[in-house]
Amino acid sequence: MESIKAVKIKNIGILTSGGDSPGMNAAIRAVVRASYYYNLYTTGVIRGYDGLIKNEFMHLDRKSVANIIQRGGTVLKTARSEGFMTKEGRELAYKNLRAKRIDALVVIGGDGTFTGANVFSQEFDIPIVGLPGTIDNDLAGTDFTIGYDSALNTVVEAVDRIRDTAESHNRLFIVEVMGRDSGLIALRSGIGVGAESIMIPEAKMTVNDLIDRLERGRKDKSSKIIVVAEGDRSGGSFQIGETLKEKFPNYDIRVSVLGHIQRGGKPSCMDRVLASRLGVAAVEGLLSSKSGVMVGLVNQEVTYTPFSQAIKHIDAETVTPGWMKLVDILSL
Amino acid sequence: MESIKAVKIKNIGILTSGGDSPGMNAAIRAVVRASYYYNLYTTGVIRGYDGLIKNEFMHLDRKSVANIIQRGGTVLKTARSEGFMTKEGRELAYKNLRAKRIDALVVIGGDGTFTGANVFSQEFDIPIVGLPGTIDNDLAGTDFTIGYDSALNTVVEAVDRIRDTAESHNRLFIVEVMGRDSGLIALRSGIGVGAESIMIPEAKMTVNDLIDRLERGRKDKSSKIIVVAEGDRSGGSFQIGETLKEKFPNYDIRVSVLGHIQRGGKPSCMDRVLASRLGVAAVEGLLSSKSGVMVGLVNQEVTYTPFSQAIKHIDAETVTPGWMKLVDILSL
Amino acid sequence: MESIKAVKIKNIGILTSGGDSPGMNAAIRAVVRASYYYNLYTTGVIRGYDGLIKNEFMHLDRKSVANIIQRGGTVLKTARSEGFMTKEGRELAYKNLRAKRIDALVVIGGDGTFTGANVFSQEFDIPIVGLPGTIDNDLAGTDFTIGYDSALNTVVEAVDRIRDTAESHNRLFIVEVMGRDSGLIALRSGIGVGAESIMIPEAKMTVNDLIDRLERGRKDKSSKIIVVAEGDRSGGSFQIGETLKEKFPNYDIRVSVLGHIQRGGKPSCMDRVLASRLGVAAVEGLLSSKSGVMVGLVNQEVTYTPFSQAIKHIDAETVTPGWMKLVDILSL
Amino acid sequence: MESIKAVKIKNIGILTSGGDSPGMNAAIRAVVRASYYYNLYTTGVIRGYDGLIKNEFMHLDRKSVANIIQRGGTVLKTARSEGFMTKEGRELAYKNLRAKRIDALVVIGGDGTFTGANVFSQEFDIPIVGLPGTIDNDLAGTDFTIGYDSALNTVVEAVDRIRDTAESHNRLFIVEVMGRDSGLIALRSGIGVGAESIMIPEAKMTVNDLIDRLERGRKDKSSKIIVVAEGDRSGGSFQIGETLKEKFPNYDIRVSVLGHIQRGGKPSCMDRVLASRLGVAAVEGLLSSKSGVMVGLVNQEVTYTPFSQAIKHIDAETVTPGWMKLVDILSL
Repeated sequence: MESIKAVKIKNIGILTSGGDSPGMNAAIRAVVRASYYYNLYTTGVIRGYDGLIKNEFMHLDRKSVANIIQRGGTVLKTARSEGFMTKEGRELAYKNLRAKRIDALVVIGGDGTFTGANVFSQEFDIPIVGLPGTIDNDLAGTDFTIGYDSALNTVVEAVDRIRDTAESHNRLFIVEVMGRDSGLIALRSGIGVGAESIMIPEAKMTVNDLIDRLERGRKDKSSKIIVVAEGDRSGGSFQIGETLKEKFPNYDIRVSVLGHIQRGGKPSCMDRVLASRLGVAAVEGLLSSKSGVMVGLVNQEVTYTPFSQAIKHIDAETVTPGWMKLVDILSL
Repeated sequence: MESIKAVKIKNIGILTSGGDSPGMNAAIRAVVRASYYYNLYTTGVIRGYDGLIKNEFMHLDRKSVANIIQRGGTVLKTARSEGFMTKEGRELAYKNLRAKRIDALVVIGGDGTFTGANVFSQEFDIPIVGLPGTIDNDLAGTDFTIGYDSALNTVVEAVDRIRDTAESHNRLFIVEVMGRDSGLIALRSGIGVGAESIMIPEAKMTVNDLIDRLERGRKDKSSKIIVVAEGDRSGGSFQIGETLKEKFPNYDIRVSVLGHIQRGGKPSCMDRVLASRLGVAAVEGLLSSKSGVMVGLVNQEVTYTPFSQAIKHIDAETVTPGWMKLVDILSL
Repeated sequence: MESIKAVKIKNIGILTSGGDSPGMNAAIRAVVRASYYYNLYTTGVIRGYDGLIKNEFMHLDRKSVANIIQRGGTVLKTARSEGFMTKEGRELAYKNLRAKRIDALVVIGGDGTFTGANVFSQEFDIPIVGLPGTIDNDLAGTDFTIGYDSALNTVVEAVDRIRDTAESHNRLFIVEVMGRDSGLIALRSGIGVGAESIMIPEAKMTVNDLIDRLERGRKDKSSKIIVVAEGDRSGGSFQIGETLKEKFPNYDIRVSVLGHIQRGGKPSCMDRVLASRLGVAAVEGLLSSKSGVMVGLVNQEVTYTPFSQAIKHIDAETVTPGWMKLVDILSL
Repeated sequence: MESIKAVKIKNIGILTSGGDSPGMNAAIRAVVRASYYYNLYTTGVIRGYDGLIKNEFMHLDRKSVANIIQRGGTVLKTARSEGFMTKEGRELAYKNLRAKRIDALVVIGGDGTFTGANVFSQEFDIPIVGLPGTIDNDLAGTDFTIGYDSALNTVVEAVDRIRDTAESHNRLFIVEVMGRDSGLIALRSGIGVGAESIMIPEAKMTVNDLIDRLERGRKDKSSKIIVVAEGDRSGGSFQIGETLKEKFPNYDIRVSVLGHIQRGGKPSCMDRVLASRLGVAAVEGLLSSKSGVMVGLVNQEVTYTPFSQAIKHIDAETVTPGWMKLVDILSL
């Protein structure tokens, strides 16, 4: 995890990879400003690992990250890279890094990003520190990922709008939120919107359980919201909608898939502060010879976790029961 | 249009009907407060025409509409009514109105609402004035309907978020907005979001036209947004997405259906002011013996238009060419 | 108004001047894209008339205005210019324009901007068309100025927040909004927030009138909002607050000055569409030999009004009584 | 802290006290729903301790807290109470509680609220659990108070707007945020908005330090934001503004006091989840014989802290240096 590098770092390369998340720009800004503070240069890599292979770099100085802290998306752009999954691709990437005299990397992304970084840092002698930039919050080694809080607020704001309509029509709404492998967006946003029930991959709840839940539930509610994670195993939001319509022909049931709005928008204050703290800590980590690690915040303290551990998903199944009971209580 | 009623109005019934729209509550408040100002009583009808038939009423005084001007949805709730399409249903509705000593009606809704009101006002001697409450802006007799401006802002805000992601990934996004019979939401919001192209029922543009447009267009854009109205005749947003993917295999194409968030949320200032002015004008219209008319704002002036004319859709085809040229120019 | 210029226009200079307003960037984008459409070049002038004098220009092509339609402020920056009020300053400005081969100007701003443009276009033979970019809506020749609608929404959103607090504490809030010479922001936003009363320069209402109003008003309201225009003649919001505290010692009275948040933020859809239409119309106006005019939208139609007429404020006194009665009715 | 009460709890009284904060309604809802879950009754006390003395109660069942999770302010209203600071007042309060058969209290508020609760719980045998409801985050025993995160987002959103204007005019803005005794809102929001510098009571920074900071700082920034806490000891935001104007006559300096908008608005998702978890934990705490304690969340775990410890402010001076260095790095 903390291999000692004899090479003195002078020039840090930065890239964003995988799905974008609000706060990535705040993280880039923090890395660039901290590098300047510690007398280092920074070089931006465009479009993630793909840009590393295709030799797409951009100059980054402290002025070039002015006025981006509040912007969604990433000014460095992001992409998936088939090439980086091959040995040839990574060799080319390393050659390009050397040619640019980049002697350390900060990678901002999620588990796919760190899986790649893990291999790369083992194959080539370049220090790499990762920043958790994903709306999914599905990484170990940090209480929250950069973008999670903003995505939750976007979901909550969208469902607040949907509830206006649901209340006016006495409707039941099935709202699908992002999270292919993780129900964490659904879980917290579901509590935030006052959901009647929440369907997530970790909970192994079936549509029959949901039907039971609705039959037991209060009948005099003027609206009900069911939050379903994208990765729910019980058939998907439209299938759930169909089953409920058959079972409850008198309900006015609608399905709404929130989709890509969840990735965008201005980052929340929490995400800006988190990205700022972690961005500075990434540079300080590299300077203290850390490599192959993701920097995170656990119980308000900066922590460095090896990539191999960070990408092991939190065992949501052990976390879930307490939260599901909370949903049950709150939706009474 | 302006039949003289000998009956002096003392108690105005108010209902909202059809799809809800932001600003309906501001309109209800204005009708209640204006009634108080002119020494009239008001009675709320719950869930539109259906509540009229099922005898669901609620007391409404000037205090009961406090602090609702900013709320989305409708405190009177709304519903579609099969019953009101039958003669028996309308007879029952009239009987209930009489029993409640309601001697005039204000109905807030869209073309379905006014179609019903038109028949009802011809069959029974009860003065009715309509308020245009729909996000679609598809009524004649008013420049803007209550809720249209708010829905446009919701669309624009959602697409701003999507663009963050689109810019970060160099993606083309197909965004479907509401409007089953009318492209007016797509048209204005499309200009507002800086759309590459807009597909609306009125324009008779085919997917081939869209492909031409994209082939002629600038290739160095970092993202492109196509706004598609729900009612577009060229196959729907997902079908358009499939066709484009086949034609442009190198594009990263995504589809996002905005859905029900468009109906909800706090009304914009414009919608609150419009609803407030029209709500007062509805009461003043009834007092000056207007009936069978929708009150609207045309060129900043209050106007009363017979229901039969209001529900004739604006001939969007004649309006469209100028706007489509605007889209062409702005997306260069 | 429409002097015929023999000179064929090839290169349009664009500047923003005076206070910034949301939608200025959308207007700049529209001017640049429309110029491209009509085979013209565009040159940006930085920091308004001051940049004209100090020779600060920037290249503007259709790509350089990508992704700015949604941004507040102005990418061309803006400033007040003492120099442009002198003959020498304007001569220098003209020399610089000629040196840059700029043969027409689009100026975006308010009455100060157009006063300068009026003099300049009379002194030198350069066609100038103005775009109404101000949150104040105090120009003749257009129903709405670019930025007015966005500012109204910002005010309404801020006061919605303040009302949460006011309702929780049974408080009376005096909220000061922008408008040094015009009460138009106060008037519409006051209706939008459901104000108890509105104090604007045009209405000549005194604090005693306000006290009367409060004494006559309903005592059981859980909160009251008084909206005061910056330019109100009755002493300013803090003075009004002091007087009310003396008169009503039992009221919990607070003053809030909204300040500069009113100029910023993303433009509303209405402002984006307005700016887009007027930006294109400005270029088309220059091409049809218009000069010395502001382009506006009156009753949905593009209109060109001589600067000298545009800067004559609308006679708000004649407009005001109807709106003030509306406030009286709605706050019952 | 955890005195054992022989009395079995059947009816929990709930009140909100002190300044309102976003999320108080979510907390009320959680207390009511959890009480129902555990077969307890709940009674609402209106306007805090004052309502306790004046015998103002309201019925609260699980339905009466429907659809309030997203609302700012508090449906129970809040007030400061002079009476409760006297022994007679508290005796009357206790008598009223007994008469209403309320046998436990949940109080939601800040340090003033808990100071009162502390005395009351020592004088009378009624179990009391507190919920941290304040935007200031200045309580020990919880990482975050309910409302803090929402207030931060409101500040950040407001300053984003101000920056649009600041950028357009090359201005320096002094923005005053809430926090009479604590700089915690200023500290985090300052990082969130990318502030040039932050002035807080804990840091003992003088205006001369600020002047030094500005003189050393980068001169080519297009705008600068200084965030000042209300309780800053160096003279207040307007005084700082005057001093800077004298020292830097060429700067365009403006002051903006954000004021009461910071208390209002919809709670963020984080605040809704926090309020929901703590509300349930408050009821569970009472059921497990806890009293005289505030329930908080420390490192994601529910914690009960005696009132006397909770109201001791966190020693921000020890926390501050690390954050101030962060500001220095990020504003380079």
